Amino acid sequence: MRDLISIDQLEISDIEEIFSLSNYFFDNPSQHFDDLKNKILVNFFFENSTRTRMSFEIAGKRMGAKVINLDISLSSLKKGESIIDTAKTINAMHPDFVAIRHNSSGIVESLKKYLDCSLINAGDGTNEHPSQALLDFFIIKKYRQNLADLKIAICGDVLHSRVARSNIKLLSKFGCKISVVSPPTLITFGYKEWLAKNYQVTVFDNLSEGIKNADIIMLLRIQQERMASSFIPSMGEYFNLFGLNHDKIKLANKPLIMHPGPINRGVEISSDLADDPAVSLILPQVSAGVAVRQAILKFLSK
Amino acid sequence: MRDLISIDQLEISDIEEIFSLSNYFFDNPSQHFDDLKNKILVNFFFENSTRTRMSFEIAGKRMGAKVINLDISLSSLKKGESIIDTAKTINAMHPDFVAIRHNSSGIVESLKKYLDCSLINAGDGTNEHPSQALLDFFIIKKYRQNLADLKIAICGDVLHSRVARSNIKLLSKFGCKISVVSPPTLITFGYKEWLAKNYQVTVFDNLSEGIKNADIIMLLRIQQERMASSFIPSMGEYFNLFGLNHDKIKLANKPLIMHPGPINRGVEISSDLADDPAVSLILPQVSAGVAVRQAILKFLSK
Amino acid sequence: MRDLISIDQLEISDIEEIFSLSNYFFDNPSQHFDDLKNKILVNFFFENSTRTRMSFEIAGKRMGAKVINLDISLSSLKKGESIIDTAKTINAMHPDFVAIRHNSSGIVESLKKYLDCSLINAGDGTNEHPSQALLDFFIIKKYRQNLADLKIAICGDVLHSRVARSNIKLLSKFGCKISVVSPPTLITFGYKEWLAKNYQVTVFDNLSEGIKNADIIMLLRIQQERMASSFIPSMGEYFNLFGLNHDKIKLANKPLIMHPGPINRGVEISSDLADDPAVSLILPQVSAGVAVRQAILKFLSK
Repeated sequence: MRDLISIDQLEISDIEEIFSLSNYFFDNPSQHFDDLKNKILVNFFFENSTRTRMSFEIAGKRMGAKVINLDISLSSLKKGESIIDTAKTINAMHPDFVAIRHNSSGIVESLKKYLDCSLINAGDGTNEHPSQALLDFFIIKKYRQNLADLKIAICGDVLHSRVARSNIKLLSKFGCKISVVSPPTLITFGYKEWLAKNYQVTVFDNLSEGIKNADIIMLLRIQQERMASSFIPSMGEYFNLFGLNHDKIKLANKPLIMHPGPINRGVEISSDLADDPAVSLILPQVSAGVAVRQAILKFLSK
Repeated sequence: MRDLISIDQLEISDIEEIFSLSNYFFDNPSQHFDDLKNKILVNFFFENSTRTRMSFEIAGKRMGAKVINLDISLSSLKKGESIIDTAKTINAMHPDFVAIRHNSSGIVESLKKYLDCSLINAGDGTNEHPSQALLDFFIIKKYRQNLADLKIAICGDVLHSRVARSNIKLLSKFGCKISVVSPPTLITFGYKEWLAKNYQVTVFDNLSEGIKNADIIMLLRIQQERMASSFIPSMGEYFNLFGLNHDKIKLANKPLIMHPGPINRGVEISSDLADDPAVSLILPQVSAGVAVRQAILKFLSK
Repeated sequence: MRDLISIDQLEISDIEEIFSLSNYFFDNPSQHFDDLKNKILVNFFFENSTRTRMSFEIAGKRMGAKVINLDISLSSLKKGESIIDTAKTINAMHPDFVAIRHNSSGIVESLKKYLDCSLINAGDGTNEHPSQALLDFFIIKKYRQNLADLKIAICGDVLHSRVARSNIKLLSKFGCKISVVSPPTLITFGYKEWLAKNYQVTVFDNLSEGIKNADIIMLLRIQQERMASSFIPSMGEYFNLFGLNHDKIKLANKPLIMHPGPINRGVEISSDLADDPAVSLILPQVSAGVAVRQAILKFLSK
């Protein structure tokens, strides 16, 4: 396999292999490797992201790669060059890996034909974020082994979330029971039926019902932009209806809480729940992010 | 030789040596070297440039150097420090190479006395861009061997182009016949005569005449700023009069097309001509950019 | 010792050890080391700073570390994440060193409990800048050996200067006689008495008296922001009253002049004095900055 663009392209055996590579890296975070010595990873990021960019950079450097960050706000795109021309230019410099983040859904797939190197989707619009789903899978399997028996609730703006989309695809492969909890204003007409038809997913617009007996609750970040466009009455009201705290999780089955970060304290989750190491996996997710990206780089360079 | 500031300082034998080093790097783009192990290259860029900055960064890293990018928009210059003081500060940190890009013509030469390391002009105002000329020379020689017999047309705003200036100086050394094609509004009084007197250059304000029988047509990027100052009626009109397409190049001698990038599609060149691998050398130029900069770093560190 | 947050935590023997490590690095600026091979240094800078960030980056790379720059203007902080959450996120990626610069006094100390790695204060508000004080100490000791006999004048906005604060703490440990010269508008009520009570410091609001017989005059940078808030009548007037030139330093004892940079020529110092290598240590300070930061990294990784 050369590229990692969508969860769709991964067999269960690929995911298991990435898991077991990640496991070693997760347990040995201070170890550095020579696997990617003399390889170049380009972080080609069109959206700001401390955590994902830094995660790829540290992962690349731990594996021995040379990492180049392209700060697109300072780039040729300002001079009116199309992203295709920029991609062809980068390709002509012969990098070995390019990790792309962009706000257009599907753009990574469409750039594939212009790049001869390994292409990694680091998040494209509302489409996919496969390395995030792989790290979430890693954490779930690490903390709750038997995936087929798990009930997982995903809460928030599922429709617009690449994190949710990649996670639903991946977890469906392992037979998890997935509930989706979302304010009705964030579910467009037909999406509920489409989801139910394509994946083993039940959609709820009520938190209490959606997280009932859940083993894992995966929260999604609320974008400030959505507020402005009035999908949600207010941050406080969102917390009342869809935010998690210690009280509400009693409805679930001693759940573990996940969030891709950065969290909005008091919006998706109460501060004390986010900081409770007995239930919150938010920081282990960050650590797993580096380990899983090390694994992805190694997996793609086989 | 310690610095590469102007094409003027290079003997033909230097250029041949850089060519032959580049040739190896061009043919082996995935190979990394230890030549510059424990050397520090500082990219000191005052103008945005994805391609040139990235090209220097990849070249440096392929040769084993440690590369430091100075993002000047975030720098002390905002605090009112002069570029000379910044250069002295950088020098006091003992880098081995400094590549400078700045919008003031001649500034690299004038900073030379403040820097004890190898200084590389990565483009200074409308003055020179020697690494671009060396890569253009590399591509021309690679694709069309016998330089003395070649007719080369350079089209666009030659007067303000550091790419044109460095190319004219370099190609003149090899006896190429150079035509310059430029809208008359972009040629100031006396420049035509000055050019003709100093170099084997003929100036045309008509594309058809200028590219007649040309073996190579080198296009220059039109700057949007020029538009605002009314030197050119419109982008569309520029394309009509000075832009290239498959039809117009029939006047030339089965020419190869070059452009330093980023290209303005539909302005200097039609999209299908830019993308035609049988005539367009635009992407090989990008690849050559890295190889030639590797060669320059190696050449200067002898 | 794991962290370097304040001069207070350093014993005289620590400072002597850092001095002697620095001395080797200062004398061998082209040498690279493997001490920090497979270690990761994160430059976590919330304030723009070419010189300090580059100094840490070069120091880290010379010692063999992999360096990651976090450009905070592009970061999650824009998405509303607190600095504590960002620090925890960085920590979860398991860096070995984090150098923090931030405009809030005391923030580095308060982040300590969230980071398991070595934390280096690269300047926090008006509080401390210990690596600057260590480099200033290095330069003073290198050029004027017997510290206990020295009279050192620190001139400028001492109250708001982290450089002054760290220097006063450090130099007091070695028994230097310290004069502070500051415009009265930049000394708040009680500060003079507080300083005198806690350190061997005499405060002057008159340059001539303050620098009388001084062996070292350490100038502080005037911030443009102060001007706007009217603490100082004008840049020109500041130079008249508190700026140094060759004439004024005749009152001192053939002094050496220091400045943390970037300098405001014609404000804190005349151009010809700043550029006079017989008295100005401004550029040696920059070189020492890299050497001392190499030493700090090595010292903390023992």
